[in-house]
Amino acid sequence: MTLEILSIGNELLSGHTINSNAATISQSLLPHGFSVEKVTLLPDEVALLKKGIEEAMERSAFIITTGGLGPTGDDLTRDVVAEIFNTSLVRDEAVAEDLIQRFGKNLPTLEDQAMVPKRATVIPNPLGTAPGFILEGKATVFVLPGVPSQMEVMLPAVIAHLEKHHTKSHYVESLYLCLLSEQQVDPYLRTLEKENPGIDIGICPGYGVLSVYVHGSDPKKLSSIRDQVAKKFEAHVFSISSKQIEVALHQWMVKNKKTFAAAESCTGGHLAARLTEHPGSSDYFLGSVVSYSNHLKETALGVFPKTLEEHGAVSKEVVLEMVEGAKKLTGADYAIATSGIAGPDGGTVDKPVGTVWTAISTPEKTYTGLIPIKGSVQSRALIIEYTVTYLLASLYRHLNYNSEPYQ
Amino acid sequence: MTLEILSIGNELLSGHTINSNAATISQSLLPHGFSVEKVTLLPDEVALLKKGIEEAMERSAFIITTGGLGPTGDDLTRDVVAEIFNTSLVRDEAVAEDLIQRFGKNLPTLEDQAMVPKRATVIPNPLGTAPGFILEGKATVFVLPGVPSQMEVMLPAVIAHLEKHHTKSHYVESLYLCLLSEQQVDPYLRTLEKENPGIDIGICPGYGVLSVYVHGSDPKKLSSIRDQVAKKFEAHVFSISSKQIEVALHQWMVKNKKTFAAAESCTGGHLAARLTEHPGSSDYFLGSVVSYSNHLKETALGVFPKTLEEHGAVSKEVVLEMVEGAKKLTGADYAIATSGIAGPDGGTVDKPVGTVWTAISTPEKTYTGLIPIKGSVQSRALIIEYTVTYLLASLYRHLNYNSEPYQ
Repeated sequence: MTLEILSIGNELLSGHTINSNAATISQSLLPHGFSVEKVTLLPDEVALLKKGIEEAMERSAFIITTGGLGPTGDDLTRDVVAEIFNTSLVRDEAVAEDLIQRFGKNLPTLEDQAMVPKRATVIPNPLGTAPGFILEGKATVFVLPGVPSQMEVMLPAVIAHLEKHHTKSHYVESLYLCLLSEQQVDPYLRTLEKENPGIDIGICPGYGVLSVYVHGSDPKKLSSIRDQVAKKFEAHVFSISSKQIEVALHQWMVKNKKTFAAAESCTGGHLAARLTEHPGSSDYFLGSVVSYSNHLKETALGVFPKTLEEHGAVSKEVVLEMVEGAKKLTGADYAIATSGIAGPDGGTVDKPVGTVWTAISTPEKTYTGLIPIKGSVQSRALIIEYTVTYLLASLYRHLNYNSEPYQ
Repeated sequence: MTLEILSIGNELLSGHTINSNAATISQSLLPHGFSVEKVTLLPDEVALLKKGIEEAMERSAFIITTGGLGPTGDDLTRDVVAEIFNTSLVRDEAVAEDLIQRFGKNLPTLEDQAMVPKRATVIPNPLGTAPGFILEGKATVFVLPGVPSQMEVMLPAVIAHLEKHHTKSHYVESLYLCLLSEQQVDPYLRTLEKENPGIDIGICPGYGVLSVYVHGSDPKKLSSIRDQVAKKFEAHVFSISSKQIEVALHQWMVKNKKTFAAAESCTGGHLAARLTEHPGSSDYFLGSVVSYSNHLKETALGVFPKTLEEHGAVSKEVVLEMVEGAKKLTGADYAIATSGIAGPDGGTVDKPVGTVWTAISTPEKTYTGLIPIKGSVQSRALIIEYTVTYLLASLYRHLNYNSEPYQ
């Protein structure tokens, strides 16, 4: 089967919005055995849009479009698709009813948004006003809105339709490793591939985490190979379902009824934000003091002015006092502290950009260390992201595999 | 002129990597008057890659490819493009020399990476081993690597070539508004479009911010229309260059030599993270107490146990004490506090998910209010994002247009 994505919107072509929807769709379909062969971005322009959709229908059996479904003048997808399928728009009573229920009778765009192509199967949009729909003809076209949150909640309907109308041919098993480089893992994966014809193993490096994907047509073989990889790199495995290290740490903390807190300087709240993205994080996460100023390091965390003066804010001595302060203030079992130079300015000869002192404190002991920032971690955003991932992974490995932090 | 982008790589199609390169290229070309008409993702597979490039050369005069230039087995772009142009590879002495200079004589991939198609104009890659190149024939093809940092430093060579060989035809002016809905702005934009043939106005809704893009071929007319839109919605304009409200607030704070701090409960560090993403934020941002637990609200911010007990953590009374506590602890001129139920669990009949009490404190006065969470803001992530944007925008409008917060 061939399946492709058409991402519609001038803001995508102009680069003002990054096309994350296509990636979300591909990643969501893969575990169900459906892989995307092509992604095309098309403008909000009737002729080009029509041509792009028609070309795709020549090539592929299944087409997923996102974008251009809203109520404004540059939203053209519904009308263009209806025209291609040579059908007219009709008022869908269920959609109208639902819109009135959620937005009231006076929703100005009610009559427009309740119109869908005749013969279409509606995909309800519980988060917005524009319904999605499926039209079947020479090809099956799934029409979804472009707002990521709305598109995402409607994806299961697409997957259900695909599963009903098509046999899977492609499977994927995943495995997530932390604090290993691509070079440390890749040679082993290539050997496995050679030994197992018909199997493809992809490796996708993040910053501090590696995602390994085993592709093929035999689900049993895939899990067995996944398990071999897991055994080989055992003390680095943190999940087979989530590439977010904070989810693994969250689960450990809740399971073991432990609490966690932080004192952040250079990570500026990004550590707390990563943890609190996940529902239920308040079950173990007590909080973080984002002490960007030295004054706040003193008043909230009890860092001594003398320590700041003698060693500077970016120092082993200061993160030690910060982590102790965070534990004292919150009563947490475990805590992490960060203080570094994320750049692009503020570096010196002694402490260049990328110098990040950190501390990890357990009920038994407090560890300190510099984050091993490598050549590929060069921007402010990456220094912050890698620091957070490194610390969470280091603590996770300590808790699960008893490995020494910073090693 | 027609120009399109081909983004090459299996990791893009599988969704394991988001295609940020296409957006970067489009955004970099636009100010120079070049607009991208189509973006296509292609796999690392000789036949499909060749077909995709040939199809693009039928359609467009200029093609920019990214990806597939490295030294590993799945890097095919250079060889496929050479085949399409019916040319062979030759060793480029300047490239070889440069590689030896930067990586030494023993670089294992030296001989491979120094090979470029005959007749090609080389685009040097100062950050990596794979050179880019330009080939001209039926269409002009720019071949660039897929690593974003490498691709970016090579883009100026593409732009220089385009400017030398083509007249500009398309321009864009942008404008960013906050705390307005699409419905409040769209009718006026459609009127402007009708009054100005040849002008397209796109509108891109975020959560709390709206991006407006005016497209056309006459740069002077575009700025005049942009100014008309700005005048019409004056008290909501925050930038013509950045769609990030925190950047506008950052600039105001630095310019006016004021300081800012926060006390975050339900936003869990996301407010601090948004501010500290930007270099120089330490010039005005003193920090945030992410007081997820009630205990930390008491110990760090001085919230009274009795207030928590009588009104609950999610209450007007508690955010008032939080914001005062943040100002006292940090000495900041301005402060914001948040306490709410971001969900999906934790809601009650009295305080359902989406109930978010907040406070904005200025040197003169402290304001409190509920965030007006609307129907489309329903997930935990969106409640957090919208709360942060709403508060930053509300404070920005107060500072710049003297508008009352929460109105």
